[in-house]
Formats: sequence, C-alpha cells, structure tokens
Amino acid sequence: MEKFMGKDFLLSTETARKLYHETAEKMPIIDYHCHISPQEIAEDRKFDNITQVWLGGDHYKWRLMRAAGITEDKITGDAPDREKFRAFASVMPQIIGNPIYHWSHLELQRGFGIMEPLTPDNADEIYDRCNELLKEYSARGLMRKFQVKAVCTTDDPADDLHWHEAIAADPTMEIQVLPAFRPDKAVNVDKEGFAEYIGKLSETVGHRLTCAQDVAAALCERIGYFNERGCLCADHGLDSCVYAEPDTEAADQAFSEAMSGKVPAQDQADAYKTLILVTCAKQYARFNWVMQIHFGCLRNVNKPQFAALGPDTGYDAVKTQSGTDNLALLLNAFLENEGLPKMILYSLNPNDNTAIATIMGAFQGGGVAGKMQLGSAWWFSDNRAGMRAQLTDLANNGVLGRFVGMLTDSRSFLSYTRHEYFRRILCELIGEWVESGQYPNDEKYLKKIVEDICYNNTDEFFRFNLRG
Amino acid sequence: MEKFMGKDFLLSTETARKLYHETAEKMPIIDYHCHISPQEIAEDRKFDNITQVWLGGDHYKWRLMRAAGITEDKITGDAPDREKFRAFASVMPQIIGNPIYHWSHLELQRGFGIMEPLTPDNADEIYDRCNELLKEYSARGLMRKFQVKAVCTTDDPADDLHWHEAIAADPTMEIQVLPAFRPDKAVNVDKEGFAEYIGKLSETVGHRLTCAQDVAAALCERIGYFNERGCLCADHGLDSCVYAEPDTEAADQAFSEAMSGKVPAQDQADAYKTLILVTCAKQYARFNWVMQIHFGCLRNVNKPQFAALGPDTGYDAVKTQSGTDNLALLLNAFLENEGLPKMILYSLNPNDNTAIATIMGAFQGGGVAGKMQLGSAWWFSDNRAGMRAQLTDLANNGVLGRFVGMLTDSRSFLSYTRHEYFRRILCELIGEWVESGQYPNDEKYLKKIVEDICYNNTDEFFRFNLRG
Amino acid sequence: MEKFMGKDFLLSTETARKLYHETAEKMPIIDYHCHISPQEIAEDRKFDNITQVWLGGDHYKWRLMRAAGITEDKITGDAPDREKFRAFASVMPQIIGNPIYHWSHLELQRGFGIMEPLTPDNADEIYDRCNELLKEYSARGLMRKFQVKAVCTTDDPADDLHWHEAIAADPTMEIQVLPAFRPDKAVNVDKEGFAEYIGKLSETVGHRLTCAQDVAAALCERIGYFNERGCLCADHGLDSCVYAEPDTEAADQAFSEAMSGKVPAQDQADAYKTLILVTCAKQYARFNWVMQIHFGCLRNVNKPQFAALGPDTGYDAVKTQSGTDNLALLLNAFLENEGLPKMILYSLNPNDNTAIATIMGAFQGGGVAGKMQLGSAWWFSDNRAGMRAQLTDLANNGVLGRFVGMLTDSRSFLSYTRHEYFRRILCELIGEWVESGQYPNDEKYLKKIVEDICYNNTDEFFRFNLRG
Repeated sequence: MEKFMGKDFLLSTETARKLYHETAEKMPIIDYHCHISPQEIAEDRKFDNITQVWLGGDHYKWRLMRAAGITEDKITGDAPDREKFRAFASVMPQIIGNPIYHWSHLELQRGFGIMEPLTPDNADEIYDRCNELLKEYSARGLMRKFQVKAVCTTDDPADDLHWHEAIAADPTMEIQVLPAFRPDKAVNVDKEGFAEYIGKLSETVGHRLTCAQDVAAALCERIGYFNERGCLCADHGLDSCVYAEPDTEAADQAFSEAMSGKVPAQDQADAYKTLILVTCAKQYARFNWVMQIHFGCLRNVNKPQFAALGPDTGYDAVKTQSGTDNLALLLNAFLENEGLPKMILYSLNPNDNTAIATIMGAFQGGGVAGKMQLGSAWWFSDNRAGMRAQLTDLANNGVLGRFVGMLTDSRSFLSYTRHEYFRRILCELIGEWVESGQYPNDEKYLKKIVEDICYNNTDEFFRFNLRG
Repeated sequence: MEKFMGKDFLLSTETARKLYHETAEKMPIIDYHCHISPQEIAEDRKFDNITQVWLGGDHYKWRLMRAAGITEDKITGDAPDREKFRAFASVMPQIIGNPIYHWSHLELQRGFGIMEPLTPDNADEIYDRCNELLKEYSARGLMRKFQVKAVCTTDDPADDLHWHEAIAADPTMEIQVLPAFRPDKAVNVDKEGFAEYIGKLSETVGHRLTCAQDVAAALCERIGYFNERGCLCADHGLDSCVYAEPDTEAADQAFSEAMSGKVPAQDQADAYKTLILVTCAKQYARFNWVMQIHFGCLRNVNKPQFAALGPDTGYDAVKTQSGTDNLALLLNAFLENEGLPKMILYSLNPNDNTAIATIMGAFQGGGVAGKMQLGSAWWFSDNRAGMRAQLTDLANNGVLGRFVGMLTDSRSFLSYTRHEYFRRILCELIGEWVESGQYPNDEKYLKKIVEDICYNNTDEFFRFNLRG
Repeated sequence: MEKFMGKDFLLSTETARKLYHETAEKMPIIDYHCHISPQEIAEDRKFDNITQVWLGGDHYKWRLMRAAGITEDKITGDAPDREKFRAFASVMPQIIGNPIYHWSHLELQRGFGIMEPLTPDNADEIYDRCNELLKEYSARGLMRKFQVKAVCTTDDPADDLHWHEAIAADPTMEIQVLPAFRPDKAVNVDKEGFAEYIGKLSETVGHRLTCAQDVAAALCERIGYFNERGCLCADHGLDSCVYAEPDTEAADQAFSEAMSGKVPAQDQADAYKTLILVTCAKQYARFNWVMQIHFGCLRNVNKPQFAALGPDTGYDAVKTQSGTDNLALLLNAFLENEGLPKMILYSLNPNDNTAIATIMGAFQGGGVAGKMQLGSAWWFSDNRAGMRAQLTDLANNGVLGRFVGMLTDSRSFLSYTRHEYFRRILCELIGEWVESGQYPNDEKYLKKIVEDICYNNTDEFFRFNLRG
C-alpha cells in the first residue's frame, strides 16, 4: 500500500520515481495559458483567508458542492467564509476518484504543508493553519514558491494592457507576465453582446467598424499593439469548430444582422467567423505567435443560474457535436491563405483527441518541429485518466517528445500544483513504457524527453527564450 | 494465477477484498429498474428447466449464439430445450472476454452451486443438475435467495396494475414490488402503432384524446394513479435525446399526422416529444419521483428478423448520433418550467458518459445531494470495461459517493448476480485507488462509500426508505 | 525491468508467454489485406538499400518526420538515401509511445537481426549492416522469411490482373497471391476523376456506361472476371458510411452530373453509392466472397501538399462524422436485397468500435459462424492501445473466438511483423484475463482460440483452405 499522496504519489515504477525526482520535479514552470488577474500581480494581492484564495472563483469546486447537496449560500452566497470552507470539507471524502481531491490536497501540501486528508473533522483546524500562513503570502510570493518563471494571462483586444505595462516596468518583478490575445467577443457574431462589444472595439481603434473586414483589420491592429507589449500567443474559444467559405458578402450579412440585434443565419455566422479566424491566423503567423483554438463546449446551459450568477460559475459542459472535422478545412484555409501559424488545438470532448492528432499531423511540416500541437487535457479532461488518454493519443499519432505540455487554465495562484500532477502522470506513463520494455532504459533520452515536455519545448515554441 | 471466478474474482487488492467481503457482499439488493413480470411474482412462477429460465427470453445470449453459427431453431425455434442448452454450452468457450461468460457462471455458481466452467463436455450433466434444483425454486424464492428487498418493474401507463395490487395485498410477500411508469408508446409519435396506443390510453382515461396536451394530461392522470399504488419512478426510452421548442401548434400537427397514419415531420415530432416530456417531468417533480431517461439506441435494425420475431429479440444496436447535446436544452426546459425532478441519465453509447456527466453537473443544486445521476453502465456497456469507464467518468466529473449504483434491466430472476459483478468491479476500482495512494486508507469513509453506492443511496434517492 | 523489446516483449504474464511462444509465434501468416505490388512479387524485386524498402512509400514515417521538423527534401525529396535514413534515425528517440517505434524495431530485429535501438549515434552503422543483408533479399524471400502463406493485394476492377496470372503460372512460387476487388473509383461519384474512370471501366467491359445500373452491371461482370482468377474478397473505402434509398432516378441524376463534370447533390450521390454497394454486395454473396467496408476517413486534407505530392503521402486523417448509424440501414438493404455477404467492417474512428460491433451483432445469423466481423485496429488505430480497445470492444459485444484477426494494410515487404505485434498484444490480453481468474486456465480452449484468431479463422472465412 502506497502512502496517501506521499512523495511517490502516482510514481508506480522505479523509473517513474527517478525521472520525477531527479528531473521533472526540478524544472521551473511556464504557465502559458491561465486566467489570473494581471492587476492582482501588479498589486501583489494578499488574501484574507483560504476560502478567498481557494473557493472564491473556483467553479470546479462549486459544481461538486452543488452535486453533494450544499446549498448555494455556502457556495456563491453570503455564508461566512469559515462556513463555506467547512461545507467544502464535508464534500471532500465523497469525491473519491475526482481530480479536485488530488488538486486540493496538492495545494494544501505544497502551499501550506498540510499533509493529512481534509475532512469535516479537521476542517476548522486546517482553516486556521492556512489562514495563519496566508498572512505571509501574496500573489507574487505564491508564484515564486512554485518556481514560476513566466505566465500568459488572458486579455481582451480592447484592453490597453496597463497592468501588464506596470508589471513590466517594475524592477522588483523578475517573473515574465505576458498578455495573451483573446478576441472571442469579436468572433462570436451569434452571441448576445456582440454589437456592444464592436462598439467598444471601435472606440479602442478610433474609428467605426462597419463590416467584417473592418473588424478583422481592427483585430490585426490590436495584435500589433499586443505584440509590441511582448505578447507571444492568442487564444480562440469556439463552441464548435467552424468552417465555411469565408465569403465577404455572407460575412458582412452576418455582421449587419448582429449589429441590428438579430441572430444571423448559421451559414453566414460561420462565414464571418472563418473570415475573422483566417485573417487573425495570418497576422499571428506574421508575428510568429502561437495560435490556440479551444472548442467543444456548451456554455451557460442552465439559464436560470446563468441569469443569477453570470458566466464561469459552473454551468458549462462538454459538447459532443464539436465540429472536429471542420478543423481540417479551417487549417487548410489558413495554409492556403499563407497564414498557418504554430498552433495548439484543444477539444473539451476527449473523444476528439485522436481525430485532432491525425488532422494536425497532416499540417505538420516546413521544418518546424512540433508546429502543430495537441493541447493538454483541459478543464473537464484535466484528470489522471484524461491526461493519460491525451498523452497516449498524442504519442500514438505524433511525436510526444515535442509536446509543449501543461497549462493551468486557472484563476488561482495556488493551481501551479497542476503542473506537478501532470508531471507525475507523465513520468508514471513513461515509467510503465520503459519498465515493460517498450522504450529503452536510456537515461540520456529519457531525461531529455521529460525536460523538454516539462519546460524546454514551451520555452522554445512560444519564444520565451528563458534559457537564453 | 487467480482461481477461475473464485471467491476473490476481480478483487485484485487486499483493500478490494476487504471492502467486498466485509461490506459490499453483505448489502441487500434494490433492483430499481428491471423487466421481470409482476404476474410471475404474483403467481410465484416455477420453471421446468434451466433453458426456460436462462435462455427463454435472453436476447443477449441469442446474439452470441447467432454470431457463433448456431441456427435459429436452437435459439428461438422449436429445438428441444436440452438441445438449446447444449448449443449455448458449445458457444461458451469461444466468448472469452464477454460479460455473458461471467454473468452465466455467476448465475450457475450462486443459483445452482455449479463452480466449474460450462463447456460442451459437461453441458448435459449441468443441465440435469440445474433442473433438479429448479424443482425447489420459484420466482419469489430466487428473489429471496439473492437478498432482494425491492424491485421496480416496467409498466405501461394504460396498465391497471392489478398484479401489483395482488402482490401488495399478499401478506406472505415481504419484498417490495413497485411499478415504474414507462410512457414510451405515448411519446413516440413517429413510430408505428402510435394511433392504436392513443386509442388504448384514451379508453383507460375514459375520454378521447384529440391533441398533444390531451395526451400530456392523460399521462399526468395516470402518473397520479401509479403514485397512489406506490410508484416512485418513471422511465423514458428515446432513440436519440431530443429537444425542440415545445410549441403547441407544431406538437398538435405531429399528433394529427400520426393519428391519420402518417409519419410527422421531424421538427414537429420533436416539438411533440418535448412537450410531453416537459409536462411529465413537472408531474414527476410534483410527486418527488425519479425520472430516468435512456437514449442512444438503434432499434430493430434487422427488419426481416424483426418481422419474424418482434422486438427485444437481439436486433438493436448502439446509436452514435445520440443527441446528447440536446440533453442540456431539455433539462433547462424542465428547470424553466419549474419541473426538474431527480433524474438518472443513461446513454447506450459509452462515448457520451463524460458529456452527460458534465451536462448534469450544470443542473445539480437546490440542496439535493446527487439530484442528477449518471446511470450505471447499461445493456451493451454492462461489462467490466464499461462499468469501470462509467465509474471513472462519473468520479472524474461528479461525486461518486452519491451514486445510486446498479440495476439489472433484466427479464430473468437469475440476473441479480449482476449486482455482485458491479460490486466486485466497484471494490476493485476503489481498491486500486486506495492502494496506489490516491485516496486515504480510511475505513470509515470507504465503508460508507461502498454501503451508500450498493444500497443506501438508492434507498434514499427513490424513497424506498427500507432502512426506516 | 523487462529487456527493451526482448523475447517476451508485451508478454506480461506466464500465460501470455506460453500462448505466444508455444502457439501464436508458430502460426504462419495470411495477410488478407495489403497494398504490396503484384508486379514486385512477379519480378521478385530486389532493393538497393534500407531507405528504399523502409522509407520509400511509408507515409506513416513521413508524418512523424514532418512533425519532428525534418525538411521535405529528406522525406519525399531529393536528399541522398543515407541522409534520409539519418533523418529518420534522429526522430526515433523522440517518438516514445508511438507504434512506429515498435514496428521499426521489430522490422530491424526480425528482418536484419539488429537488436539495439536505432539512434542518431548508430544510424550509419545500421544503415550499412542492413544494406549488406539486403543484397541477399528479395520480395519473395522476405515473404518466405516471415512464413507468409497467402496475401490479397488491392486491385482496380479495370485491371486485367496479368501480374497475378504471371504469379499463378510460376511453378517456383508457392505463396498464394490473390487479387482483391477495390471499386472505389466507380463508387465515388462525388470525387474528382470519376468521369475519366468511368471511361476506363467502359473500355474494359467493351461498351459505354450510361447510367448507374450500367456501372453496377459492369462491376458485376468484373467481379466475375476477378472470381475466375481466384479472388476471394472485395474492399470498399468510403469517407463516411452512407445510406440513401437506392432510387434509380436519383442515382442516375448523380451519375449524369458527375459525367458532365459537376459535383452531384449529396442525397443523389448517396443514392448512387447505395445502389452500387447493394448490387455489388449481392454479387459478392453469390460468389461467397468476403466484403470489407472501410470508413471514417478525411482524405487529402492538406490541399497544397496533396497538389504537390498526390494521394497516400501522409495527408489523411480520422473523420469524426463517420456515418456509423447508416451502417445499420446499409446492411439491412443488403439483407432485404438477398445479398448480405460475409463482411468485415472497419471505422478509422476508434470511437465507433462499440457501435459497429453492436450493429453487426444484429446481422449475424443463418448458421454462419462469425459472418459479420469487426475489422482489426487499422491505420491510425493500429497501435497497442487501439488493438487492445478493438479486441476488448469486440470481446464485450461479440464472439472473440471467431475473429479473423490481423492484416498489415501495408505497402512494404517488411511489415509482416505487424502480425507479430498483434499476436503479442492478443496473448498479453488473454494472459491478463486468465491469470486474473476471468477465463479458465484450460490449455485446450486457449490454444484453439489463439490458433483460430492468428490463422485458422482467416483461412476458413476467406476460403483460402490452406489447411486442406
């Protein structure tokens, strides 16, 4: 019997233990995709208590609390922070097999030195111990504690990036904090709020946007603005992966409909989206950025709760009709438009992994190693089974040694332990392969693979160039 | 080497063995979803031979016999019962890896004390030994042998439930035998036989049904009738999960078309089905029933054989276009109509597990623990890999400790060993987690999780309240 | 720690080792589906160097090289053969977990006695050693080395099969080399080149083809021609599995559109395809052939590279909308048209396995054992995880003991080691089942299952009748 989440957690072979403790564990962290607030980093935010930093914005945990019968007042409501912590603690023993069980304990272990399982019995004591330690903690302090060398936040094209400028200008801040360009609101012509957003973007660029190509041009301008401020990547979140002939007329019709408050026809909306994506891709390629596309998501499906609490509160889900086949058409359109940038592709539906890996395999080339990447197991797939499946699917249909590895996608400064979780699973899997004779026990190559996936590939692919 | 299906079958760790033998094995059975005949329970049916009770209605076994080249006369035809048993025995050694191999041997072991593998060589001897024992057996006797405390059968809304009344009135019958409301024939406006069925339902409620809302009202009336006779749950079997705006006019048009013998347009049929489902859901919620929805099924695909043998004879299959994304819209419609009951959701397509688990996660809440349930691996997925996948997918995206666990979905009084199969797999999986350090080796919590999933959660969720 | 790809590679239990070494390893090979050239067999081609035989036409390897950043000149371009080999060797250590890593080393081991891992360090030495040995090798010599007893190539209906006739007439050639009928170009009414192909087929049969039924009749005539030359099977590659009512008028309209250079409407194209498939199926059934259907493929998705290099150069991918549900309608149409032949069904999308296994289960029968087969894990799925999934999905929903097993689908005379890879994985899986008590440790039945899946079932199913 292994110790509960001990030193060798998930490291089931001697090879895994050696690779993890001698190599993976020592690599610093680049978190190239997250949702932490640049303001909180600029101001080096401090936290009053563990509920604030741990449960405050974490809709993963909220969902589990709801499923376990906790009432909303103790989740997003007015109950005191200690009560909320107790409520979460009462759920913990029931979520056997859930990644949050592991994430939470890794965070308690690495963040606060608390090695015992959280239960209703010790909830109060742990709450107090954490809060005592938190007095000494801050946003930057936590980042340093986890050896974070660089992060990319998630930023709107209309953002002036002043918090990023402030961080960059701060001589006491050695961690690279870069923006990432996320133009979803300008792409989603069929969602509420589009017209208002175009108004905002219009103000930012200083002239009216009257057609699809105006929007595309405005985004290209903002990509340049972001690029000047060190941005290295963009991220697109699509519900389904779309493709339609990027016909200007159809795209403009979608734009006009949306600007007058109507929902455009789907084929026109798809033409609009494709046109914007193709134009952005070309600009990303020009600046040698990494373009990420996330898809396969049903958003805000519980409408009464969405109305009450807003987005990102635990009411999204996996979409099965994720449009993966369109990805082949979309990437080809990028290529034929001479604008296929380096890409990372993610579907929230784990069933799509193999198809994506094979589609992207048809767009590798041009002498760029790992130009097309299958994104790490993400959100609902970010668990041991999901990560093992992603790694296996990628290995089976691509070059695992070129993988750019893990990201947190998180809103919290405690989530960096997800890199640890990923690295343990990576070493577990490699260990199994080596010890069963599927790969040679060759220290040189194994060490390189692990270092590359944990850190070097990301450093090089995004051009952080932290290793000089 | 483990003994073939010995005492510790599938219990690969010490923790698994302990959890199974000290806890899971001792829990009684509630079989909340099956297809056994209330008449056979009321009359305490006896069986002439093992072919009758074992092969008589079991289309799972028939499919395997066909695939192995057995001719139809020895499957559903006129061959003598001993010949049929011999034919099945000849197939057994070939179905390595198939769950029927395990189910059959568990049934021989627990039902008849036969511990050796069934082969062509010992078929006659085993046939005779089983038949000798069967002389002492009966429907109720078998239920008692397997510690069954309660079952829900599957009943048509037009049924007067007199067999259930007879059982309830029988002072010698201590096992709860409750009806379950299954109104598929009133929902499937696009299937043959709809008009005739509406005629029958019309007779039952005593007035003509002339539109969609008449049907909905009639079903609500019958839900009340069933509720008075102890019913606690309903079950809906949909080929695909559907959703369309439940527009009355469109629904009525579908109804009219179908009543005049035509197949309605799909969007109208979907409006009709959604309208009926939304109305029923509200009534179920009012009575605090559990609503089950099963989907992802291609029915009667072999038309010549369907014509020859009728439904439920082995000619169904998994549907890949199972409509899972619609589930989000359907559940939201229930919610907005103030009628989201407790639910169990099942797709026959195992690829849908994660999507369903995440969709239902967006509808948990209101302080009801485990209000939305991912149904147990079912029918074609009811095998070790399928159960492990369902448990893992659920654990990854929900609260496993609240799971209501297993059902047989069976037509046979010998199938209760499927609960044993499930419990062994559950303990196997938990054992792996504990012994690899993924969950603490805490007897209190582990015992509670196993007891709850095997029995207590079902008892509470459905309100059998057998524990008082 | 197991030795890297040693004698017991993948054979993780004593039972697996025994079954493999005493049974599986000794069975000869029937490769019932491949793409090797009958001309090269007829002429007993020799090879100048390992690059030619190993990298010359292998788009699996090309994809990996592109993904690892190798430039096209060293893949399909003009670089010297030694440079290409070095480039591939430089990729090898990075593709941990990829089946090509195992295939390549099995080929080096069994083909050339090279037991060490290929790396950049030993690339030149291995290149020279292989080339030295290759001087003694030839197409037929390699087939004999791997104990190949029979192969089916892939042949166009318009082919006169003269190379096959030459092989059949050669008294020094004891290996059966049979054609397989592959009429895709006559089916794909919606693809480029259709009209030209119909012209060619027209010439072959000696009269003009003016409608869908003319094409169907011409194919039936060619099936007869192939049958006279020993052909035992056909193969259909569909992007998606299609079905539409095989209405003659709609089919003819598709034909006319295509002949005049237009792309027909999809419903008409589907009617045409269904009509051709139904007609062919009936003819196959008449001759007792095996009909294979492959689907779930996105072809030539990278259009610039397709334009540059042509088909089968590494630019295909898995299709998620693979039309699996249509399979049920298509098989029923075959059946109702009295022409359901023995079939092998493959989807490139591994998610479809379970659905296909259950659909085909509904068409088993008529006293033919294993009439409907789930095809072996194929192309992108031909890896350890994919094979284990295919075997498990098949075992769960069918009769594994009747499975016809492995094929190479390869263009190379070195690929027969894929049968070894498959047999090791089969024995590994069966070993796990036996040693964990899921199947009896009964030598007689285990040996028979392994022999049958490795060889006997294929021999009997296709009617090679090599065992007399």
